[in-house]
Amino acid sequence: MQDKKPEIMERLGRVGVTGLKTIVMTNWKGRRYNFVPEIELTLDLDKERKGVHMSRLVESITECIEEEVEIRHGSLEEIEKNILEKLKGKHSFNHAEITMKTELVVPKKTPVTGKTTMETYGVEVTVSSDKGVYTKRLLVEVFGNTVCPHAMNKCEGKTHIQRAIGILEIETDYGNEIDLEDMIECVEDAFPSRVYTILKAEDEKQVVREMYENPRFVEDVTRGILNNAKKRFKNVKIRVKTISEESIHRHNVIAEGSCRV
Amino acid sequence: MQDKKPEIMERLGRVGVTGLKTIVMTNWKGRRYNFVPEIELTLDLDKERKGVHMSRLVESITECIEEEVEIRHGSLEEIEKNILEKLKGKHSFNHAEITMKTELVVPKKTPVTGKTTMETYGVEVTVSSDKGVYTKRLLVEVFGNTVCPHAMNKCEGKTHIQRAIGILEIETDYGNEIDLEDMIECVEDAFPSRVYTILKAEDEKQVVREMYENPRFVEDVTRGILNNAKKRFKNVKIRVKTISEESIHRHNVIAEGSCRV
Amino acid sequence: MQDKKPEIMERLGRVGVTGLKTIVMTNWKGRRYNFVPEIELTLDLDKERKGVHMSRLVESITECIEEEVEIRHGSLEEIEKNILEKLKGKHSFNHAEITMKTELVVPKKTPVTGKTTMETYGVEVTVSSDKGVYTKRLLVEVFGNTVCPHAMNKCEGKTHIQRAIGILEIETDYGNEIDLEDMIECVEDAFPSRVYTILKAEDEKQVVREMYENPRFVEDVTRGILNNAKKRFKNVKIRVKTISEESIHRHNVIAEGSCRV
Amino acid sequence: MQDKKPEIMERLGRVGVTGLKTIVMTNWKGRRYNFVPEIELTLDLDKERKGVHMSRLVESITECIEEEVEIRHGSLEEIEKNILEKLKGKHSFNHAEITMKTELVVPKKTPVTGKTTMETYGVEVTVSSDKGVYTKRLLVEVFGNTVCPHAMNKCEGKTHIQRAIGILEIETDYGNEIDLEDMIECVEDAFPSRVYTILKAEDEKQVVREMYENPRFVEDVTRGILNNAKKRFKNVKIRVKTISEESIHRHNVIAEGSCRV
Repeated sequence: MQDKKPEIMERLGRVGVTGLKTIVMTNWKGRRYNFVPEIELTLDLDKERKGVHMSRLVESITECIEEEVEIRHGSLEEIEKNILEKLKGKHSFNHAEITMKTELVVPKKTPVTGKTTMETYGVEVTVSSDKGVYTKRLLVEVFGNTVCPHAMNKCEGKTHIQRAIGILEIETDYGNEIDLEDMIECVEDAFPSRVYTILKAEDEKQVVREMYENPRFVEDVTRGILNNAKKRFKNVKIRVKTISEESIHRHNVIAEGSCRV
Repeated sequence: MQDKKPEIMERLGRVGVTGLKTIVMTNWKGRRYNFVPEIELTLDLDKERKGVHMSRLVESITECIEEEVEIRHGSLEEIEKNILEKLKGKHSFNHAEITMKTELVVPKKTPVTGKTTMETYGVEVTVSSDKGVYTKRLLVEVFGNTVCPHAMNKCEGKTHIQRAIGILEIETDYGNEIDLEDMIECVEDAFPSRVYTILKAEDEKQVVREMYENPRFVEDVTRGILNNAKKRFKNVKIRVKTISEESIHRHNVIAEGSCRV
Repeated sequence: MQDKKPEIMERLGRVGVTGLKTIVMTNWKGRRYNFVPEIELTLDLDKERKGVHMSRLVESITECIEEEVEIRHGSLEEIEKNILEKLKGKHSFNHAEITMKTELVVPKKTPVTGKTTMETYGVEVTVSSDKGVYTKRLLVEVFGNTVCPHAMNKCEGKTHIQRAIGILEIETDYGNEIDLEDMIECVEDAFPSRVYTILKAEDEKQVVREMYENPRFVEDVTRGILNNAKKRFKNVKIRVKTISEESIHRHNVIAEGSCRV
Repeated sequence: MQDKKPEIMERLGRVGVTGLKTIVMTNWKGRRYNFVPEIELTLDLDKERKGVHMSRLVESITECIEEEVEIRHGSLEEIEKNILEKLKGKHSFNHAEITMKTELVVPKKTPVTGKTTMETYGVEVTVSSDKGVYTKRLLVEVFGNTVCPHAMNKCEGKTHIQRAIGILEIETDYGNEIDLEDMIECVEDAFPSRVYTILKAEDEKQVVREMYENPRFVEDVTRGILNNAKKRFKNVKIRVKTISEESIHRHNVIAEGSCRV
């Protein structure tokens, strides 16, 4: 049925499955990770064919993941490329892409007492194949804060402070090795201070001190992330969005920017 | 089919429709309001009957709302009671309840410059009929902030500040007249400062000043809301939850309390 | 402070407020509408200036909405253009855009008994100014269903059916008059059948009959929407996405397409 | 500061942290699991004390999880009880409770071709301590479908079908051993058919056939889950909610029930 001619002949750019969840294991730089990502896998459909064999898309994912258990591939992007490779044998397409959206837990140290604290980051890893050429898109979502320099100036050192979320997205060739952990650092370093899951009294004092020493608008944070990423990575497209959940308003403020380096 | 005996004979406490959206108009104390609430309408189902005639539930809602356009009832709770009354003629039940979840926009003045600013609040209004006795449950969700008194004490007046959300829920007899606007004030008055959609420079200074003069934990805010509601309302059950979206952590902190007065 | 030179000199493409909610009233073709949309208003920021005066953005919105109460402008896009015009006097920018995301309630008739039923649609209206040239982007989100033609073929007329959501987005010149109601029809006509808030027994029979007479993949629905929009509108970019919430899987399937006409 | 007397003296029932995410490892019946649950940990606060030492709550979680890496406790509920035990040494309280909300991935076989397919379920595990007495609450969220028996009767075997979600919650003594996998089966067996991530053509035919052989209202599904749980478990309170995402309506229908056995 899927291979029949459709009544309406229109090429479709992205057809596939979304919101699929399964277990994925990686072995990145000697450390084992277990994820239950949300997966989206799509390909283009030429105007002569009615539909995509959706079950073959799912098979590409599950077969590949079963193999992974043996092979222990190194990263989400390696697994994703393998899935697209496997898909080539089952389907004809010009463009295909796969995204895994999950959470990365990274051990960190608190700033003064040096306690180990597990910090969780939203991440998205996409690999695309365009006529056989592979590119990737990496995204990290990092919590931090903004501290209003304008209010600080007007109110003798007092100001409003709030949680902010910084999102850094990098697009580059598949072969350009980029660590999600490095991307996370680019974002964390741009906030007035980092945030931690655990903070002893001395750590908390230090975090508050940093906030007041580095007052920053949401615009400053976005520029900081852009700048950090430009210094750290090469041959990449960079997109940044910061959202500040204002403590004096019901609404949020945002700042977005992008560049190429 | 719905009136047949079911294979498995179990009484069900709540059966009905949810997530239904439609236009509702009220005329509360001389001011006209238009809402597009999300509606949930359920009744109990005795163990002898297979199903509820869902279309009759929807009809009770739509017929009632059509009449409202003429009659201009005063409040969401009045419309809800009418819907339950209409339902009695169509269905047999011991217990029925209807909830409308929507947003209330209230004009306010900014604290120094006195500009008019429209502030939006999440509200939920529920009317229940239990063997013909009507009760109601009102809920408001109000944005504000917390200002850590502990950090302020340890860091010479510096502290961390964040957006917080206060939720006040009141359960009482149907006839006990309670204004959602009064409930909103109970919550707003318990925060270190109110928040506003628009703030001129002088207003912002005042809001920041208030924050530092009234440092409060999430526990303090919840106790303040409880206290304000106890003083304002009679013959009610009060439930309060405050969520503080910490600016120094990835996670939130919460405080819940309840009482009866 | 906002007008100072920033430490890091990067142009930012979009800076502003988001998630702002307020009341907006329109008078579209003689019918009055009240909305409480979620508003995002952004402009670009050149690399020489530290920040945007966020309160002026909010003022452009509120002043314009207050005037509207008198003037009764016809549509969300008219109000949005006015807000951007007002912003020109307060801010210098090359690019600015404003989006209102809300719900449109449209009265319809059930297919057999002809009862009036209120149907609710998600809509987004964006107006952009690029060096003074205005364009707009309109989006509607419409519920419907998919009926698997492949299973119907294999299982002697039996098949799996599920809720689906069709999203149609149109980009065009500001002056190109396009009704959201017409866009909604383009989507509704592409589904196996329409869906209704109220359905009497005879209506339900008709809806079920239509489903089995028009089995369609998610791909078919997307092509149908594209085709309907191509026939109805001129000088537009069209983007379509359909999401089918499979009743035989935990995950969803999607089909996206776009064209220009 | 937290130990000071508060201005307003009200006992609070639940104070603590929520939305905290970290890695948790278990070793349930010989199989290793890795979770990144969302954690909520609260305790009651008497009216004489201003606040809870939030950092001690987080420490109870992190210390316990670090030990787990060595000890390999068997289940989420075992880890949760350990966290509450550890909390006793740091805080005085009458009532404390901890919830972990995460996803359980279970390997299953497709119905005809017997392929291995990974199925993902939402789960919540709560342990409460009330004056030293431990109880627990387990919840599973399972996807399935409903098939309207009323329409099937009226439309000569044709009907509307849709995705449905069944939620089963069990409350019982801490020591009463209950498998989440068994709870999941209670829900899956109550739907017209199970749903699968992967389905070959023959499997899909079988799933469609089962749907038409077991048409069920949302009420039937809820009663079926109640019945299955009553037969399987002892000394438990059972709560069930099923949500059917109608393919002929914009809104959902629900059925809830509860019993004790």
